[in-house]
Amino acid sequence: MREIKGFKFSAVEASVKKPGRLDFALIYSEVPAVVAAVFTTNKVKAAPVILSMERVRGGYARAIVVNSGNANACTGKQGMVDAEETAKLVSQGLGIGEDAVLVASTGVIGQPLPMERLRSAVPGLVAHLPSGSLSEVARAIMTTDTFPKMETRTGAAGERAYTIAGIAKGAGMIMPNMATMLSFIVTDAAVDPVWLRKIFQEITDSTFNCISVDGDTSTNDTALIMANGTAGNPEICPGTPEAENFEKLLRDVLLALSMQIVRDGEGATKFVEVVVKGAVSPGDARKAAMAIANSLLVKTAFFGQDANWGRILAAVGYSGAEIDQDRAALLFDNVEMVRNGMFVGGNAEGLGSEVLKKKEFKVTVDLGLGEGEATVFTNDLSYDYVKINADYRT
Amino acid sequence: MREIKGFKFSAVEASVKKPGRLDFALIYSEVPAVVAAVFTTNKVKAAPVILSMERVRGGYARAIVVNSGNANACTGKQGMVDAEETAKLVSQGLGIGEDAVLVASTGVIGQPLPMERLRSAVPGLVAHLPSGSLSEVARAIMTTDTFPKMETRTGAAGERAYTIAGIAKGAGMIMPNMATMLSFIVTDAAVDPVWLRKIFQEITDSTFNCISVDGDTSTNDTALIMANGTAGNPEICPGTPEAENFEKLLRDVLLALSMQIVRDGEGATKFVEVVVKGAVSPGDARKAAMAIANSLLVKTAFFGQDANWGRILAAVGYSGAEIDQDRAALLFDNVEMVRNGMFVGGNAEGLGSEVLKKKEFKVTVDLGLGEGEATVFTNDLSYDYVKINADYRT
Repeated sequence: MREIKGFKFSAVEASVKKPGRLDFALIYSEVPAVVAAVFTTNKVKAAPVILSMERVRGGYARAIVVNSGNANACTGKQGMVDAEETAKLVSQGLGIGEDAVLVASTGVIGQPLPMERLRSAVPGLVAHLPSGSLSEVARAIMTTDTFPKMETRTGAAGERAYTIAGIAKGAGMIMPNMATMLSFIVTDAAVDPVWLRKIFQEITDSTFNCISVDGDTSTNDTALIMANGTAGNPEICPGTPEAENFEKLLRDVLLALSMQIVRDGEGATKFVEVVVKGAVSPGDARKAAMAIANSLLVKTAFFGQDANWGRILAAVGYSGAEIDQDRAALLFDNVEMVRNGMFVGGNAEGLGSEVLKKKEFKVTVDLGLGEGEATVFTNDLSYDYVKINADYRT
Repeated sequence: MREIKGFKFSAVEASVKKPGRLDFALIYSEVPAVVAAVFTTNKVKAAPVILSMERVRGGYARAIVVNSGNANACTGKQGMVDAEETAKLVSQGLGIGEDAVLVASTGVIGQPLPMERLRSAVPGLVAHLPSGSLSEVARAIMTTDTFPKMETRTGAAGERAYTIAGIAKGAGMIMPNMATMLSFIVTDAAVDPVWLRKIFQEITDSTFNCISVDGDTSTNDTALIMANGTAGNPEICPGTPEAENFEKLLRDVLLALSMQIVRDGEGATKFVEVVVKGAVSPGDARKAAMAIANSLLVKTAFFGQDANWGRILAAVGYSGAEIDQDRAALLFDNVEMVRNGMFVGGNAEGLGSEVLKKKEFKVTVDLGLGEGEATVFTNDLSYDYVKINADYRT
């Protein structure tokens, strides 16, 4: 991957996770970077979330230090002390202000951070910066993920090329609400700070917030972007073609990361795009799509490759969205299964089953009531989801 | 079981389900009975639900005809025609008014009722009434249930003994909201009709509506009570000791049926009582308890016998209930795991794990904020839940 100007990356083994895996990582901007972030709406917030929420209010940051293997959530006052100390050690190592260091954690809830191990790992983490890479960081933030998630786009503004690079981690406790698990985006573009915060929130809402693996909103969800301006472009300002392009590229990165998270959902064997249209409002469409995406009965039917459309309409029925059951239509990919709320008959069952045998397919529900539309990405519920989460801490 | 005066029961094989299983049943009151009912809040309602909702408005009924194996849901106008025809055939067989016959169905969604089979089964169904039993009906309404669910209580009013007998079926798509799947209660007591409707609604709310197997609210949920007065007691009226006793007995029956449904939840290996107290309101307590009961991560941890209390607090955090994470306490049975939002340490992990190895245990969350309290019954999420629902239609 092409370098991202003015950023350095590092990841090391601090033995928070089982030995042999990177679990402690650092993203460092050589100059103060504009920062925008969205955090979990879970009222039980991990200590690093509380600390980073405070610190991003200033609008600038220099570094993000992350550990995996331990969420530092439900750890009380000690958790805050530990998050602050981690940031402080990193700030001392880098020779920057403490407030410029953001923190994030992911992993088991309720256990204190192994601070001795983190303390002794900080010098090595800082020392590795000259030779580290963003892909190392992507690996270091993995928990039950089976592959690292990274996406990059390049653009130009004022004849200066810039890069937007993002990483993310899933793979369970995924029902983002304002943000998903952990995702860090860096760009060397110079961007209007107020506008960046606005579009980051908006784009998050239509990407990370439109996926669901298991309906559980995490205590640690954090999505962050740092824009440090070292590309040397004139600041990208709203209402310009450059802004439009930047927004599109940023959306591409977040959407790609979202889809990677769903594809790597715990135990997933299917990747499913759920489209609800014809709803009375976009909000209704989203409620309906999320209910489908989170229904255990729908997800187990996907796993069983069973074209059980009745469960899908039942999920819409309890979603809170308006539905006239005599007007709903449903398709698996392009195979019409339901028209006017009823099975179309013929060979639809066979054709629908063929669609569900695919690894990726689309479910479209047309409520026939209005113009509201929403798309959500989800996956199936397999034995392995149960296995992974029954054995998670052992 | 003791006879319930003035009621007759019947169940036969109509081959709606696989051969060899009862699947068509009839409950008949020899005199008009006061009826009260609660139905699913799912906006996608099965045809029998729509028809029975209309018919219970009259306040009286004589018969309930039920089939399992086919939900007659998402079946459009034909579904209504079929539900009406089934009721009509039964009414003709019994020589009673068509409007006095209620209908209920449970099973696969989206397939037309096999009307030829039902038509030819009605005469046998009616003919079997003199020798049938309520326990046969309990068996006939089973789908994925592994055992029939029945509960009986006897009481007295004005020196006349009466019986309250109820049956129910689970075992998936259980997240009742106004009612659960199917449950039919019969009593020979004479009861004030207006008061019966009021208490039936209230009791349903604190029994059937406090259980969750998988968070999916069915299209067919129906809970019905018929009180035909053949015990000869003076009508039980509100504000009397007799009313208090009747209410208690009825609650006992519904609570016992609710617990049987949870115990027989699809694939369940654990029966879990979730108590949330110290919430700012009863509504908040219920939201929190339901979020715990429906969390896939909590339920898979139960299955894995993992005392992963962090997932429980995380579920409360996204439930919408107020929580101060530094005040929450959590217990597995009597083992304190969390105090002031933090793990208590010591040997709590080992003791907690021992509790989770039991087949039945209690999770108590004390939010420490107010007086709101709620109890919900749930179970774990096992491989078998996935298997049962992946293969349901095959």
